[in-house]
Amino acid sequence: MGEDRREEILRAVGTALRTHGYARLTMQDIADESSVSKAALHYHFDTKQDLLVAFLDRLYDRFTARLDAAEAAAGDDPVARLEALVECTLQPPEDDPAGFRTAVLEIQAQAPFEPAYRDRLANVDAHLEARLAAAIGAAKDRGRFPDSADPEALASFVVTAIHGAHARGVATGHPVADARRALLDYLGDLVPADATGAETG
Amino acid sequence: MGEDRREEILRAVGTALRTHGYARLTMQDIADESSVSKAALHYHFDTKQDLLVAFLDRLYDRFTARLDAAEAAAGDDPVARLEALVECTLQPPEDDPAGFRTAVLEIQAQAPFEPAYRDRLANVDAHLEARLAAAIGAAKDRGRFPDSADPEALASFVVTAIHGAHARGVATGHPVADARRALLDYLGDLVPADATGAETG
Repeated sequence: MGEDRREEILRAVGTALRTHGYARLTMQDIADESSVSKAALHYHFDTKQDLLVAFLDRLYDRFTARLDAAEAAAGDDPVARLEALVECTLQPPEDDPAGFRTAVLEIQAQAPFEPAYRDRLANVDAHLEARLAAAIGAAKDRGRFPDSADPEALASFVVTAIHGAHARGVATGHPVADARRALLDYLGDLVPADATGAETG
Repeated sequence: MGEDRREEILRAVGTALRTHGYARLTMQDIADESSVSKAALHYHFDTKQDLLVAFLDRLYDRFTARLDAAEAAAGDDPVARLEALVECTLQPPEDDPAGFRTAVLEIQAQAPFEPAYRDRLANVDAHLEARLAAAIGAAKDRGRFPDSADPEALASFVVTAIHGAHARGVATGHPVADARRALLDYLGDLVPADATGAETG
């Protein structure tokens, strides 16, 4: 299968997930969002699960590229990089439609039944956690985070809070922007006052 | 419907959810877990959704009763009460099987499509958040939490982290016990050193 065809199919998966969610999603829904017939879809991907795994692989590549861009834009300050990673991961629904967030939570809830999904979801977490830990470690080295901070443990807690912001937003409509603000406040409070100077008043 | 019959049916919903998950759950699965026929189930509850709403109402009652018991057992110290609430909400899978946790996440992911689910899930959060805020407020009043702590904001952040611990556990297998430890450490770090004295070394 050519790259263009593959990209068209996987983009159609994203559109169909936003509209129909995961549980209700059919191969026909995906075909309807592309110029590819349902028969051709089945030729390339045996099952909806295979298609979703390819979609999750593409999502990983796109997510890590967005994190690269966010960190690069934040410049040299490790605290700014840390904040940029959180902001990039918790974009409010205007930029990242609620329909897509819901579909991702549905896929997460299927992970215990689909080991290939769980592998991909765990890879996303491991990548994000490593980047957060690197930024926290760099902040520590520059005296912008307390010596007592454990970068890996803190990064893991941030990843948990990010999961929570998404899940809670879907389950109850709690605004992701509020959860993001709370997480950024928590991280900001860890920065020693003498390291931030006038910035924090 | 008598209370015994109702309780038997709703207990069967819980058992069937643990085994089959939510997406795959049928009225027949629920009937199979009780002495009630599928026809009788349909007589009492028109749809799977109606049955799930009744189940979520029962879950709310049982959850709030567990929180009552946990707080009462923790005694008078508000920090101990706060920790007891977190521990009660994030029991490791030995006590709260992964199958049930997964089913709850599936139900959360359906909330955008089922307003009656969302109402119930939001009620659980509101109840937990109010209790956490009350414990944090009491801790502040006794000098066991910093004056700068905002009980409502902090309680909301804790609820988000609890959502995250559950969702992450289902999605990637990240141990709920680790996420609970991280959350308890975070809360413990907020207690001023002079308020805990020798307890924290």
